[in-house]
Amino acid sequence: MTEFNQAASPFSSAGRGVGSTAAAAESTANRQRAERVMRRDGLQALVATTPENVGYVIGSQLRATNWTMQIYAVLPADPTARPRLIIPTNRLGVVAQIGLTTADLYLYSDFFLEGSPEGRASTPDVDAFYALLQTAHTYAGPLEALNAALHDLGVGQAAVGIDEMRISPSVYAQFEAGRPERSVIRAYALFREIRQVKTPVEIRRLREAAILNERLERELIGLIREGVHEEEIAAHYRRGIVSAGAVPAMVAVGAGPRSALPLIERYFRRIEQGDLVRFDLCSHLDGYWADTGRTAVLGEADEWQTKHFAAVYAGWETALEQVRPGVQASEIFEAAVGRVRGSGIPHYRRQHVGHAIGLELYDDIVLGPSDHRVLEEGMVFCVEVPYYELGAGGFQIEDTVVVTPDGYEFLTGMPRVLYRQ
Amino acid sequence: MTEFNQAASPFSSAGRGVGSTAAAAESTANRQRAERVMRRDGLQALVATTPENVGYVIGSQLRATNWTMQIYAVLPADPTARPRLIIPTNRLGVVAQIGLTTADLYLYSDFFLEGSPEGRASTPDVDAFYALLQTAHTYAGPLEALNAALHDLGVGQAAVGIDEMRISPSVYAQFEAGRPERSVIRAYALFREIRQVKTPVEIRRLREAAILNERLERELIGLIREGVHEEEIAAHYRRGIVSAGAVPAMVAVGAGPRSALPLIERYFRRIEQGDLVRFDLCSHLDGYWADTGRTAVLGEADEWQTKHFAAVYAGWETALEQVRPGVQASEIFEAAVGRVRGSGIPHYRRQHVGHAIGLELYDDIVLGPSDHRVLEEGMVFCVEVPYYELGAGGFQIEDTVVVTPDGYEFLTGMPRVLYRQ
Repeated sequence: MTEFNQAASPFSSAGRGVGSTAAAAESTANRQRAERVMRRDGLQALVATTPENVGYVIGSQLRATNWTMQIYAVLPADPTARPRLIIPTNRLGVVAQIGLTTADLYLYSDFFLEGSPEGRASTPDVDAFYALLQTAHTYAGPLEALNAALHDLGVGQAAVGIDEMRISPSVYAQFEAGRPERSVIRAYALFREIRQVKTPVEIRRLREAAILNERLERELIGLIREGVHEEEIAAHYRRGIVSAGAVPAMVAVGAGPRSALPLIERYFRRIEQGDLVRFDLCSHLDGYWADTGRTAVLGEADEWQTKHFAAVYAGWETALEQVRPGVQASEIFEAAVGRVRGSGIPHYRRQHVGHAIGLELYDDIVLGPSDHRVLEEGMVFCVEVPYYELGAGGFQIEDTVVVTPDGYEFLTGMPRVLYRQ
Repeated sequence: MTEFNQAASPFSSAGRGVGSTAAAAESTANRQRAERVMRRDGLQALVATTPENVGYVIGSQLRATNWTMQIYAVLPADPTARPRLIIPTNRLGVVAQIGLTTADLYLYSDFFLEGSPEGRASTPDVDAFYALLQTAHTYAGPLEALNAALHDLGVGQAAVGIDEMRISPSVYAQFEAGRPERSVIRAYALFREIRQVKTPVEIRRLREAAILNERLERELIGLIREGVHEEEIAAHYRRGIVSAGAVPAMVAVGAGPRSALPLIERYFRRIEQGDLVRFDLCSHLDGYWADTGRTAVLGEADEWQTKHFAAVYAGWETALEQVRPGVQASEIFEAAVGRVRGSGIPHYRRQHVGHAIGLELYDDIVLGPSDHRVLEEGMVFCVEVPYYELGAGGFQIEDTVVVTPDGYEFLTGMPRVLYRQ
C-alpha cells in the first residue's frame, strides 16, 4: 500500500500554472482568535457546516456540487489539536487531489471503486486516494462520523457550537438530542466573528482575488466603444475569471440609464456616446471574494456626471481617512455620508459605505449606521460610497483594504478616477 | 408613475441573443402534482427556501450572491392562486430585470435609491424597477413578509409545509411558534417529490442544458492530442459554458491513470499516447442541470480498454432497455449491474446506475438497489454505468432521457462509442 506522502503531492509546489488551478490546502483559520471566542463562551469545539466555514477550518474549498450534501469540519478550542473533516466517501478523491494535510478524515456512506495502483502506472493523487481509501474508517452516516470526531478530540459531553446554517435540520435535532441539555449552541455567528480578523494566508488570497478582479476590470473599461453591448463586456469578464480558475458572481455592467441599477444580472443596452458605464464586479478565487468597482464615461463627462462623481469620490476618500484600529464602523459611515452631502448630493442616503469581505462577499461587520463595532488590525473591508439615481445614472468606486496598525493598506490599485474612453 | 408593463419588458421576446442571456420567467412548476401532494398531506401551501425550490415556484433563478440571504416563495395548493415571492428590497432590481410576472412580491428591509425615470431617458427594466419600488409594500423582515403572503392567500391557520433546508433556523423557529401546534411540517422532500415529474417547460430547459453540455463535450474530445494538459481541456469547457450564459460545476477530465477518478476538480496530467480520457461534465443553464459523459482514447484502444468499454456499454444499454413508466428504479439497477457482470467485469459493483436530474444535479429518485419507486412519464434521468479501476483506468457513458408513455426519449445525442483521437 502506498502511504499518503505529502512531499509526493502534486500540490507541494506553490505555483499556479497549468496543473495547479487552485491553492493547496494550508491553514487559514485564526486559531488564537477561535480559542478566545470559544473560551469566552465555554465551548470545547465548533462544528462548521457551511462551505465557507468548512473551508476556513481545513484551509481549502471543497466544491460540493450539491449544497445539501452534509460536509462538516470540527475546529477544536485547543489550538494545538488537529481539525477534523467529515465527508461522504464519494468526496474522498477530491480530498486526495487537494492534498489535504490540515485535518483528519471521517468518512460516511459507501462508495465502490476497484483496483490498486501498486506497481502500476499511477499519479500521486491516485496513490493518495488509494491510501486514504485503505486507511480511513467509514461511519454509517454524518451524525455517527461527527460524534466520532468529537469523541476522538476528547470533547466528551462538553458544550460545543454548531454552525446551524447548512446542517440538515434532522441531523441537527439528532445531534442535539444525543448531548446534555443546553450543551449545543448555534455557532454560525461565532464563525463569522472569528473570521473578522484575517490571517496572513487569508490576506494573501484576498489580494490575489482582488488583483485578478481588477485585471479584468481594466480590460472591461478598454472594451467600451459606441455600439458595444453590455452583455459582450460582461461575457468577457466571466470568461477571464473562469480562465484564471476563479468563479464569477454578480457582474454589474450598466450603461446609460442602467448605470443607476445597483445589481445587474441581465444585459440590454448597447453603449451610446455620453453613457456612463458603472462596473461592480464580484468573483471568488479559492473561496476568497473580490468585489471592486469603477465608473467610466464614453466621451466627455457632462457637468452632472462630473459633479456627482466628485461627490462620490469625496465620500470614498473620507471613509478611507477614518479606517484604522479602534474606530467604530458607524463612525466611518457617518463621516462618509456627511461628506457626500456636503459635496454636491445633499439628499444622499445609504445603508452602508462598505462591508467586510473574506470567505463571504459580506463578511461580518458592515460600515453602516447601526454597526458600532470597532475595527481591528487584520480586518479586510470593501469601501464603497455609490450613488444611484434612476433616470439619471449611477457611480461606483469600490476598493478593498486591510486594516494596519496605523491605518490601512490597499489590496486594490486602479486609479480612482472617472474613466474616459 | 410608469406602470409595470409586461409588453414593455425587455424579456417579452423569447430570443436568446445578446441582451437575453437567460430565459424569461415562465411557469415551471407542476401545479397539478403539487395540488395532489398538498391535498394528500393536508397542506394549504408550501414555502420554498432553497434557490432551486424558489426558482421552481417563480419560474426563474434569482442568483443570490450570498446563500444565507432569506428568499422564499409560496406555492399555494389551489392551482389557480398566484405564487408569492418574498425578497429583500435590494433584490428588487433583479426581479425587474427578469421581467417576473409569475408571482406577487413581498419585500422586506430598506434600500435607498434616488430618482425617477419619468420623462427621462430610461430602459424598460429601469421603468419596471421604479414602478415596483413605488407600489410594493415593504415589511420589517422576512418573517413578517412571509406571514403577510400566507394571510393574503387565505391560508389562515391551516397547515403548511416549509422547505427546511435554507430558511434561517431562527426564522423557522419564530414562524413555527406563531402558528398552531403541528401545523408546520418540513417540506424539502415534498418539493423534491413534486419536482420528480417535469413540466414541458422544464424538459425544454433540460434539453437546452444537455445540448450545450454535449456541444462542449464534442469540442473537448477534439482537443485530445499528445502533450495536451487536462487543465487546458477543462478550461476550454469552463470558458465555453460561461460564454453561453451557463455555469460550469464539476468538470471531470481525467487522462491515463486519472481516468479512474470518479470526481475530478484538479488537473495534473499531460495526455500520452494510449491514454484513456474520461469526461464527466456538469453545468447548469437557467438553473437546470446537465450531466453527460463519454470516454476517449488517444491512439488505438488496447484489449483491456476495448473489453471494459464494451462491458460498460452493455450495462448502459440494458439500463435504457428497462426505462419506461411502471418500472421500479431498483429493477433498472439490477438489470444493468447484472449485464456488466456478465459482459466481462464479474466483480462489478455500483451504488446506482443513474439519477433524476432537474433543478438539482441529483433530483429525487436514484436508479439504485434500495429505491423501489416507480418511473412515471415526464421524469428525467441521467443513465450512467461507469467503471473505475485505480491503477488501470475508468469509463463513462452518461446520457439524459425523459420517460415517455412507452419508453424514453434522449435529450442527449452524441454517439455512445469509445472515441478515438
